[in-house]
Amino acid sequence: MKLVTFTIDEDTSIGVYQEGKIIDLHASFLKQLMTAGEARAQEIANAHIPRDMIGFLEGGEKSFAYAQKAVDFALQTDDSSLILDREDVRLEAPIQRPQKIICVGQNYREHILEMGRELPEYPVLFAKFANAIIGPEDNIPFHPISEQLDYEAEFAFVIGKRAKNVSEKDALDYVAGYTIGNDVTYRDIQRRTPQWLQGKSVDGSAPLGPWLVTSDEIADPSGLDISLFVNGERRQKSNTENLVFTIPKLVAFISEMMTLEPGDIIMTGTPAGVGFAMEPQRFLKDGDIVRIEIEKIGVLENKIEKVRR
Amino acid sequence: MKLVTFTIDEDTSIGVYQEGKIIDLHASFLKQLMTAGEARAQEIANAHIPRDMIGFLEGGEKSFAYAQKAVDFALQTDDSSLILDREDVRLEAPIQRPQKIICVGQNYREHILEMGRELPEYPVLFAKFANAIIGPEDNIPFHPISEQLDYEAEFAFVIGKRAKNVSEKDALDYVAGYTIGNDVTYRDIQRRTPQWLQGKSVDGSAPLGPWLVTSDEIADPSGLDISLFVNGERRQKSNTENLVFTIPKLVAFISEMMTLEPGDIIMTGTPAGVGFAMEPQRFLKDGDIVRIEIEKIGVLENKIEKVRR
Repeated sequence: MKLVTFTIDEDTSIGVYQEGKIIDLHASFLKQLMTAGEARAQEIANAHIPRDMIGFLEGGEKSFAYAQKAVDFALQTDDSSLILDREDVRLEAPIQRPQKIICVGQNYREHILEMGRELPEYPVLFAKFANAIIGPEDNIPFHPISEQLDYEAEFAFVIGKRAKNVSEKDALDYVAGYTIGNDVTYRDIQRRTPQWLQGKSVDGSAPLGPWLVTSDEIADPSGLDISLFVNGERRQKSNTENLVFTIPKLVAFISEMMTLEPGDIIMTGTPAGVGFAMEPQRFLKDGDIVRIEIEKIGVLENKIEKVRR
Repeated sequence: MKLVTFTIDEDTSIGVYQEGKIIDLHASFLKQLMTAGEARAQEIANAHIPRDMIGFLEGGEKSFAYAQKAVDFALQTDDSSLILDREDVRLEAPIQRPQKIICVGQNYREHILEMGRELPEYPVLFAKFANAIIGPEDNIPFHPISEQLDYEAEFAFVIGKRAKNVSEKDALDYVAGYTIGNDVTYRDIQRRTPQWLQGKSVDGSAPLGPWLVTSDEIADPSGLDISLFVNGERRQKSNTENLVFTIPKLVAFISEMMTLEPGDIIMTGTPAGVGFAMEPQRFLKDGDIVRIEIEKIGVLENKIEKVRR
């Protein structure tokens, strides 16, 4: 399934994207329960398919199974309130308020080698906070705190169940699904101190989406093409097979230190081709369109919008 | 007020610490509303004084005023269910699930100068996540991932209302209160990559408490003595007047980049005297007692407990 968070009439809920339509998961499950004459249908719906994605992920396999049945139910009925046109809703970031956004630095093999560096022994991890998250239909705010706004195309995965000391072998069982992230970075702010946080977690600097492709649809997350374009010009191109630290390795590595929770987002690093590394350097400017494509996931495209003080 | 999060009979709620007693804020406000014959007392209590601290802080000045009246009410009644003995409850970290824990590195003047370094131009910021938070009665878990467990006594402040582009002059209006934090650090893990996150956000590495002293009680957060002891031996001693970046400066600096939210925690850095910097180095071991004292706040004391795999 392609799980989405969407807004219609200022009301935000979760759904499934399918062939240009959005199936409202909570409403479909509720209607299914009511049609079956279930007592306390609303309470059951709230319990198993709440309207926020993290709450839904916390429900685990049981909620996932209910969601699949709710989709089948919606497709069989003629109730147009359950199936919305893609154009009539606003897609939001699939995950809104994760407890953690963990980013991996320097994780594409060809980029490290072309820079003449050695492959790192340990993943470099740094943080963003939830204030950075925006959705696939939002503009990326360009705050007047720097002239060096840059992009980083990233393959991201989302944790589906609590993970502590998970082995590489079991790691993919803890992944709910995959999405696209843009690790938007203010380069001078990132580099004015030895720790990157301040240049990485500026408001609006983590575009995410357009949806969460559940892990049952991507049995092997390596081998996916990833590209980034600025105003149609390709700037980054690689494949997730080039990740030095694969997704199972990252889950095992991180969960040895930190308990991962449903909804936690891990952004796996960016390939060669960021604006900061070009000669001459090329940074983003007001109105630029940044488009990221990842195979089997889709497209995340956002416009840069200068913020006036 | 000294705001606490406490647990009794496996039920967690918020209260006020006063002279060896804990006044249950939610229960007192609810009882006060019921005594006044208020319709929908439970709903009003939930709305203005919910049972979690971040929800309460989100209520702002209105909730704060209700809380003060609820305390007065509890003290006037003879209802012993509203006023608990300190010994009968378990104190938890005052804030449980903040959206952000932002730590400041290298922020005590005398420590920087004694190391022969120059005062930094910008605050060094790094992150912990909420998985790190433990309370004043918890042991600090010493995970078997490193032999280099270290302490860092820190004066911490908590945001009370949403802050974006706040000036230094207005900054203290956005601070709900102050508490003690221990920025527990696994030194070798912190230093095995250039970014510190992985050595800083290990489960249980952010002891916090024992309470949140509201900012009306500490008009000026500079000039407070801070000390840390390991098994009774003083290791750190300074005063918050030595902070290079004061609390108003930090609020202004951070809120230019990130929108701060109620409950966000900023840990302001640690004085000289960490175990890593001693000659020879001295790290924490199973059973050690780490005690931090900060003037006008109190004591945060935790025992180190080795975790067996």
